[in-house]
Amino acid sequence: MDNNEIEINKPKTNKKSKAKMMSLKIIPLGGLGEIGKNMTAFEYDNEIIVIDCGLAFPDEDLYGIDIVIPDVTYLIKNKDKVKGIFITHGHEDHIGGLPYILKQINIPVYGTKLSLGLIELKLKEHAILSDCTLNMVEPAETVNLDKFKIEYIRNNHSIPDSCSIALHTPVGVVVHSGDFKVDFTPIDGKVMDLQRYAQLGKKGVLLLMADSTNSLHKGYTMSEKTVGETLENLFSKATGRIIVSTFASNVHRLQQISNCAVKYGRKIAFSGRGMENVSEVARELGYLVIPEDMVISLDQIKNYPNDKLTIVTTGSQGESMAALTRIAASTHKYIQIFEDDMVIISATPIPGNEKAVSNVVNELIEKGANVIYKSIEEIHVSGHACEQELRLIQALLKPKFFIPVHGEYKHLITHAKIAQSMGIDKDNTFILENGDVLELTRNSGKITGKVPFGRVLVDGMGVGDIGNMVLRDRKNLAENGIITVVIAIDRRNKVIISGPDIVSRGFVYVRNSEELIDEVRNIVTDVVEKCLDKNITQWAEIKNGIRREVDNFVYMKMKRKPMILPVIVEI
Amino acid sequence: MDNNEIEINKPKTNKKSKAKMMSLKIIPLGGLGEIGKNMTAFEYDNEIIVIDCGLAFPDEDLYGIDIVIPDVTYLIKNKDKVKGIFITHGHEDHIGGLPYILKQINIPVYGTKLSLGLIELKLKEHAILSDCTLNMVEPAETVNLDKFKIEYIRNNHSIPDSCSIALHTPVGVVVHSGDFKVDFTPIDGKVMDLQRYAQLGKKGVLLLMADSTNSLHKGYTMSEKTVGETLENLFSKATGRIIVSTFASNVHRLQQISNCAVKYGRKIAFSGRGMENVSEVARELGYLVIPEDMVISLDQIKNYPNDKLTIVTTGSQGESMAALTRIAASTHKYIQIFEDDMVIISATPIPGNEKAVSNVVNELIEKGANVIYKSIEEIHVSGHACEQELRLIQALLKPKFFIPVHGEYKHLITHAKIAQSMGIDKDNTFILENGDVLELTRNSGKITGKVPFGRVLVDGMGVGDIGNMVLRDRKNLAENGIITVVIAIDRRNKVIISGPDIVSRGFVYVRNSEELIDEVRNIVTDVVEKCLDKNITQWAEIKNGIRREVDNFVYMKMKRKPMILPVIVEI
Repeated sequence: MDNNEIEINKPKTNKKSKAKMMSLKIIPLGGLGEIGKNMTAFEYDNEIIVIDCGLAFPDEDLYGIDIVIPDVTYLIKNKDKVKGIFITHGHEDHIGGLPYILKQINIPVYGTKLSLGLIELKLKEHAILSDCTLNMVEPAETVNLDKFKIEYIRNNHSIPDSCSIALHTPVGVVVHSGDFKVDFTPIDGKVMDLQRYAQLGKKGVLLLMADSTNSLHKGYTMSEKTVGETLENLFSKATGRIIVSTFASNVHRLQQISNCAVKYGRKIAFSGRGMENVSEVARELGYLVIPEDMVISLDQIKNYPNDKLTIVTTGSQGESMAALTRIAASTHKYIQIFEDDMVIISATPIPGNEKAVSNVVNELIEKGANVIYKSIEEIHVSGHACEQELRLIQALLKPKFFIPVHGEYKHLITHAKIAQSMGIDKDNTFILENGDVLELTRNSGKITGKVPFGRVLVDGMGVGDIGNMVLRDRKNLAENGIITVVIAIDRRNKVIISGPDIVSRGFVYVRNSEELIDEVRNIVTDVVEKCLDKNITQWAEIKNGIRREVDNFVYMKMKRKPMILPVIVEI
Repeated sequence: MDNNEIEINKPKTNKKSKAKMMSLKIIPLGGLGEIGKNMTAFEYDNEIIVIDCGLAFPDEDLYGIDIVIPDVTYLIKNKDKVKGIFITHGHEDHIGGLPYILKQINIPVYGTKLSLGLIELKLKEHAILSDCTLNMVEPAETVNLDKFKIEYIRNNHSIPDSCSIALHTPVGVVVHSGDFKVDFTPIDGKVMDLQRYAQLGKKGVLLLMADSTNSLHKGYTMSEKTVGETLENLFSKATGRIIVSTFASNVHRLQQISNCAVKYGRKIAFSGRGMENVSEVARELGYLVIPEDMVISLDQIKNYPNDKLTIVTTGSQGESMAALTRIAASTHKYIQIFEDDMVIISATPIPGNEKAVSNVVNELIEKGANVIYKSIEEIHVSGHACEQELRLIQALLKPKFFIPVHGEYKHLITHAKIAQSMGIDKDNTFILENGDVLELTRNSGKITGKVPFGRVLVDGMGVGDIGNMVLRDRKNLAENGIITVVIAIDRRNKVIISGPDIVSRGFVYVRNSEELIDEVRNIVTDVVEKCLDKNITQWAEIKNGIRREVDNFVYMKMKRKPMILPVIVEI
């Protein structure tokens, strides 16, 4: 029996060596293999912290769904361990899940001032603000927990107060870039803290997790300031009103638009609920600075001449209810398009929104506006790092391990290759999926398990109650409509007493299809009478027969497959 | 009484001067204010001819619709006048409406050899080929009718045998560009007939109608040949199979892919119904030339090593049933993705398809394929003229009047401005909408009326039977589902005999919502009993009550608005 074995038989004295062996678990719950709902859990021993808690907007196959949030079953199961959610910045895909998830599990939330301001808005709307704990962190500040120290490091992004996080853990330093770009001339003058990146790199970084959104794009992302130059050029030429549509949360952009407006003596009105809310919070907190007398409300615009007005509005994505869309469709309460309006769409369509944006552009042009959009002027820059910036942070941090995050598979794999070309070992690069458990020690990493993950669908007040079956039904209803067949049967005497009544929706325009409906009625009567004659009184069997026969008939006749819904009323 | 009045009172002798005064009517039935379903009617006296007869693919708000075709009510009303449909080239948005419209009104169809080959395929599928008259026209040939002479002029486009049309009319020459680009190094060596354009311009062109698709793009469209160079480079590097996805109708592209395959000793297999059909027709007619022994069928690919195979497939738009989509989803009968496959997507997503294509790319990469797509290599060029080419044909033709065609409003207006900057009078530029009747004389043009126009929806066998009401229902069903409420009432005794039965689809997963359904049942019972107590036996009134109360309850409870469908069975 040698010393080693003795050690093993003495668990009480084993504490130190066990701690040494413990690994850091990294569990992405969202944001991998997709754009949106970013959320990652880090677990060491009895401590879990979470970075970000975002939402995703539904794909078009998610009929009727409002938003999508991550599955946090794992956090709920381990709720005693979860010490905090650390928010990198205030975009929807990083904070939008909070109201739903804080209702399920009340965890302290940490973030910078503007992020918390935007989170407060949300929690107020959901009437849970007073139940939640929000802790402000300054860039360069560190939150000390038992196992984790969470250090905020300023970066640049399309919203002020955005940070990367250096997570100091017992196995080493993990840097999570958050969403970022490197802007050498940011609007607020606060360049990303590259020195701290370098310092961490010098000391040794175990793992980098970095934003992959723009990994397919070569070169550098342009500075936000370049948009200001284009804007100023446009403002100098406009003769009528200027209507600018952009993301409400892009406070830097709002600042640049406001600066131009002020310079050219134009009052500024904010339009759209998101724009009104964010501009108010940003002004209150000092992130958006506009002379008080230059801001007016929408109902005042009629008091000013056109060339003294700038309207800043939501709707840059062609969202059906957003202000710009309503302006284009002439359904906005305060704003109609005039002949000499200049409309600037200072954004790029998010994939999937191209057609909607194009429709809005066409409507605006048809109404006489001079519409300035991406194809015409460089009126938007991305908030995400391109290849050269991704290389820069690799060079500064020189991490041992690398996980590309925030992106679809094509973005992740391209980012992994970039990292490998900068010297990261292929075996030390992990392309994870949501729910993967990566266990990391000082020397090795391995996927060791899977936790519940996936998309939780929010529809109205319902969170997670819409499943695949309901979605499948909605898809079928959307494409083919429904035929409801109601028939009343006297079970004892085995006769039809009433019906069949045929009611359809989304199938055919009934007034032109009376003949067809009559035929369906006859088919149903036939099926039911045959069943009753054969003494079949299992309603399920009769219903199956109705479904089958009506389905066959309609498909043969029309090559369509409406949902068939038989209802038997038993008297 | 002066001479003029005498003339007016002598209609018989008025013939010549009346003919002099007669104007050419130009009536776009599709393709204006939209991309797709191109179709224009030209009318002079008792003669109508039509250029093109296309389809459009449905927008996402057209739930369940297969395709969209133009409204040809005007042609049907004037069918004795209609002498022919003249097809410029064989793309769906120029020929896809033919099978539907020829069923309604049998008109001779004219086109070049490949166009007719592709039209034959369609008419066979619809089993009407033998009823139709197809007339082949060679480029540079003219069809002489009574009032119109229709001259075919070769142009370049992303399909061989594409032509512009010079329409010689009593009021002057109208040039319709068709879809075109100017390719100085086309694959078939046949450069657009710019000399004929110049000659017509020299003699005098009354009106130009030209393709606006790419009017927002500066510069020139690259030659199809440049794609060949990129392809060859990729073929030289591939170690496994090469799978190329492109538009089946882009026979030039198929030729270039085949040339590369032959050069590198790879057999060629065509995958997807469209690809198989078009490649067969194109080979039969001599537009696609591949050595017989190099083409194999899909079931033979297993007999060849990977580096001796090229698969050419449909699905470049991520269409859900297309071959590449099925390959990516591992549901294709013959083709699974291997680790060393190179997949080349030689196309750009059509607006609206971006997300679907991106999903296919991600799935292919996840399965290990090396996917080459637009963001990575210049693997596609457009078939449409950019600004400089549009200027070139203006310079050659120097038309008096101009109508930009084939494009959304933003394309049309930009094209109009390009034409005006080339010297066309603003008053001589007409931005038309579908259905407009433009009357043109030698000296003036004027919109004088409107004919029926719009989108006729094709769903299965139904053409035009789906209207706005059905679409509105489908949208509502898609987003919210349906609750069917069935109740049997004894009218004489004014009591409920059975029900209410509540059946929902696409609303909630019923097993988790029993309580909710119970509440709905109680609400319905309440409403009905109250009505019956009050002697209300108007079913419509009771139904309205049910709808209102259930709607309110569900919205209050869930913030959702399912369709409520009450059915009362009267016993």
